[in-house]
Amino acid sequence: MNRPSPEPRSAFPHFERLELRWADNDIYGHVNNAYHYQLFDTAVNGWLLRQGILDFGRSETVWLVVSSGCDYFGEIAFPDVIHAGLRIGRLGGSSVRWEIGLFRNDAEDCAALGHFVHVNVGREDRRPKPIAEDARSLLVPLIRQSAA
Amino acid sequence: MNRPSPEPRSAFPHFERLELRWADNDIYGHVNNAYHYQLFDTAVNGWLLRQGILDFGRSETVWLVVSSGCDYFGEIAFPDVIHAGLRIGRLGGSSVRWEIGLFRNDAEDCAALGHFVHVNVGREDRRPKPIAEDARSLLVPLIRQSAA
Amino acid sequence: MNRPSPEPRSAFPHFERLELRWADNDIYGHVNNAYHYQLFDTAVNGWLLRQGILDFGRSETVWLVVSSGCDYFGEIAFPDVIHAGLRIGRLGGSSVRWEIGLFRNDAEDCAALGHFVHVNVGREDRRPKPIAEDARSLLVPLIRQSAA
Amino acid sequence: MNRPSPEPRSAFPHFERLELRWADNDIYGHVNNAYHYQLFDTAVNGWLLRQGILDFGRSETVWLVVSSGCDYFGEIAFPDVIHAGLRIGRLGGSSVRWEIGLFRNDAEDCAALGHFVHVNVGREDRRPKPIAEDARSLLVPLIRQSAA
Repeated sequence: MNRPSPEPRSAFPHFERLELRWADNDIYGHVNNAYHYQLFDTAVNGWLLRQGILDFGRSETVWLVVSSGCDYFGEIAFPDVIHAGLRIGRLGGSSVRWEIGLFRNDAEDCAALGHFVHVNVGREDRRPKPIAEDARSLLVPLIRQSAA
Repeated sequence: MNRPSPEPRSAFPHFERLELRWADNDIYGHVNNAYHYQLFDTAVNGWLLRQGILDFGRSETVWLVVSSGCDYFGEIAFPDVIHAGLRIGRLGGSSVRWEIGLFRNDAEDCAALGHFVHVNVGREDRRPKPIAEDARSLLVPLIRQSAA
Repeated sequence: MNRPSPEPRSAFPHFERLELRWADNDIYGHVNNAYHYQLFDTAVNGWLLRQGILDFGRSETVWLVVSSGCDYFGEIAFPDVIHAGLRIGRLGGSSVRWEIGLFRNDAEDCAALGHFVHVNVGREDRRPKPIAEDARSLLVPLIRQSAA
Repeated sequence: MNRPSPEPRSAFPHFERLELRWADNDIYGHVNNAYHYQLFDTAVNGWLLRQGILDFGRSETVWLVVSSGCDYFGEIAFPDVIHAGLRIGRLGGSSVRWEIGLFRNDAEDCAALGHFVHVNVGREDRRPKPIAEDARSLLVPLIRQSAA
């Protein structure tokens, strides 16, 4: 299998600080693979909320995840501090491909590289809607350089 | 984006029954995308434990996840019962690619199609080890037909 | 400290079957104490939903938890099947004290005994509301015998 | 029911900063009651690990939870920052009663007040062991003043 390689911090324009929890560690003493996706969700939605792009009680549109994936290069474990590097791999008309690197404490290379595709849909009809211009202008600076 | 399609029950040789939890539902009233991976882990590891291929306290080798992914076609929500279809997409010398379809209640097409790659490693050294013959003979019947 | 004792199956008038997940096990190889509360929630809310007492998208009132607690007598661990015994310790005008025993596989005594107090509140104003008569008639048969 | 009251920050000698996650919010838009216990565990075990009182791979003794409880006074919700006040309600020969207040952002009164009893047990035999003197000297400053 052709495996991707871990990427360095310089491959990400923005970072969010995340904390782990005791219960994240499984019987092998490291964070179970399913919890990485909670970290991806938290990093991206935290950023969207603080930017005002998402207001989960009131905004007309919400973001649904239609696909996701992760490559795991090394362990992370509570009580590590995680620095989540964020970038946008593709900015479409109504969708965003988020790419997230999880860096353990002071590590230079990421321990995991994940992605998910967010589609902007109507809160009620759940149909795709164009991303608003003010949101788009906040998203553009996060587009991956080689993909810009 | 070229999206995969939902697959029918007939595409899976074995099923595990899974239950959802109240806390799986997020603010949108459906199971949050991260929890699907807990379901994949539970379905596959439950089967491995019952087959005797994994004994998490004593077996010489354990299985680590090196990559994972999921396509989401529709919602699932507590209190649905989930039927997880299992198949093996690729059986390597020391690794297994598991493919899992999550079917909601009586639905004929899966609401989500996930996969992960398990590598069989030494409990102590965490280095890949060949899959034992008795384990392999239990895994072969789950190989995807078109991939056999 | 004066510790309560484990109770037998005969102390509960109704049972719900629950499944554990791989990720519930922590580094000590057993279900982490926090996850017991997910099981309590799931057992009681699952029963409420099936009885039609709760409809989380539409009912005028919802149930909020104002206190909870648990005594742990023994371990539970994935892949155990859990039988959750349900009873009502106190049925007030707008509140219910639920008591839940978690029984491991075929064990006669519970591995954990938990409780929580549910208050019936308006969906919008979050103020206590009297429990409707039709709901009350479904709850009464679960009242603990010695407390009836 | 005789309900306890929320306590102020001054009732706690030490604080740990905790972050919430997207998936913590349930369908009512607030953190589900079960997740408070993950926060209690994380605050206390994080402190124990940093003090060197617990080393979950190597220490001769580990801490098991034998009882727990929580009173909920108000909502907390992602993306709040939580300040967990820690104190010891009772320091026994081989057990510690931890009391934890969860404070939302800048709130002066806690949104939830929880507790759990940790028993120090042998890693292998799971029998209570006396708390070592060096650990005890680190725990004493956290004893609740009115209980000292």
